[in-house]
Amino acid sequence: MTETSEIDVPADHPRYESLLTRHRIEAGVEQGITSKQGLIAEGRGEAFDYLLGEETTESADAAARAAAAHLLLADHPVLSVNGNVAALVPGEIADLAEAVGAEVEVNLFNRTDERMQAIADHLREHGVTDPKGLTADGRIPGLSHERAKVDADGIGAADVVVVPLEDGDRAEALAAMGKTEIVIDLNPLSRSAQSAAVPIVDNIIRAIPNIARHARELQDVTEAELREIVATFDAEEALRAAEEAIRSGDLE
Amino acid sequence: MTETSEIDVPADHPRYESLLTRHRIEAGVEQGITSKQGLIAEGRGEAFDYLLGEETTESADAAARAAAAHLLLADHPVLSVNGNVAALVPGEIADLAEAVGAEVEVNLFNRTDERMQAIADHLREHGVTDPKGLTADGRIPGLSHERAKVDADGIGAADVVVVPLEDGDRAEALAAMGKTEIVIDLNPLSRSAQSAAVPIVDNIIRAIPNIARHARELQDVTEAELREIVATFDAEEALRAAEEAIRSGDLE
Repeated sequence: MTETSEIDVPADHPRYESLLTRHRIEAGVEQGITSKQGLIAEGRGEAFDYLLGEETTESADAAARAAAAHLLLADHPVLSVNGNVAALVPGEIADLAEAVGAEVEVNLFNRTDERMQAIADHLREHGVTDPKGLTADGRIPGLSHERAKVDADGIGAADVVVVPLEDGDRAEALAAMGKTEIVIDLNPLSRSAQSAAVPIVDNIIRAIPNIARHARELQDVTEAELREIVATFDAEEALRAAEEAIRSGDLE
Repeated sequence: MTETSEIDVPADHPRYESLLTRHRIEAGVEQGITSKQGLIAEGRGEAFDYLLGEETTESADAAARAAAAHLLLADHPVLSVNGNVAALVPGEIADLAEAVGAEVEVNLFNRTDERMQAIADHLREHGVTDPKGLTADGRIPGLSHERAKVDADGIGAADVVVVPLEDGDRAEALAAMGKTEIVIDLNPLSRSAQSAAVPIVDNIIRAIPNIARHARELQDVTEAELREIVATFDAEEALRAAEEAIRSGDLE
């Protein structure tokens, strides 16, 4: 599950992270995991990440910590995985699921049986046990049929969901169901980021391992302390700080 | 050559331009014109265009006017076309070539015979007579073999080149050859934009028709007036204004 030899570039190369991202997203196309829309979305993310300086801001780190606290407090946390998430961070998702005791559910905007299967297989190869999403016996109210499908005992029953790179309609519909939503999105003004209880404005390739790291640090902390972390997190302030970083960051 | 019925959305729809762009770029994939890299690049452009407010700034309009003056003054102007340019604005390129008497040359970062041929065919279908680039008997100094290929009597002999969405290495190498380079790029701090005599920070789908419109307006203007437009254009100021627009534009 270590990914160090995937690309022929040392991990301390200044472009390592972006070259690895590019490599994984293109491999995702070959494997039928990443869609055309996914490639375009990847490019949008690259531009925002470039404006952010390609690093995790202090504010995004605080959001990742709040996300970890929410996940540790949850009765039934679920990590939602689409094509780009599966292509970019399959091993990291498996690791986070283990760190917080979450289930993993495949959840596609453009759902086809082939892609669902390819993504579930890819996740299993990277250590995810029993990815959900194939049963599709639950529905998210307020979305059209194909878009609404979830597993009744997965996202359907979840109290806390992590939805990285999620479409705005679905992010809003999940929030409207009363679920505590943790969104990872590089655009602080996307509807997904705006509808989240915890918006993490960061590259998913940094954010997912960062949530896992915080979760391990918080493992032996009391429930009261976790609740304190959750209570003091301010989503609006996080979005404001992210926008400020994009506006004033070093473009060069 | 009119493209009004390509998508089932009225031209005054607020998302018309972005829906048309999306439609053309995806059709480009089906036709073997747009590459994976091209889809990612399209996404990066979308993000920058979103930050710009998806409109042509005053400064970008002035750059388009300077570009038109350069093209009208040129002895041998050439429009360089890659996969995304061909997918997004084939008819608009044909129209601009006609307006300024320029040649059109296919010029790919990832050059394969199939893509060269598919793009040349696509351009012909949209009214480009005799697209160049297939002979490849010239070289741009300082680039690796495949990347360096141009037509000796096309870009090789050009005094003014329009290179939309161009890779930074090649943009710099063309500028180093002493060619007057007009770059269209939505990132004002890309190496391509920085190496241009005239950087147009605008969406190609707006910029190419805008240059053609200016060229037609300037058709009967004296050479002295054209030289005045060229001389008063300030590339650094244009890049500064574009960065300012991205920084301070209305994100919502």
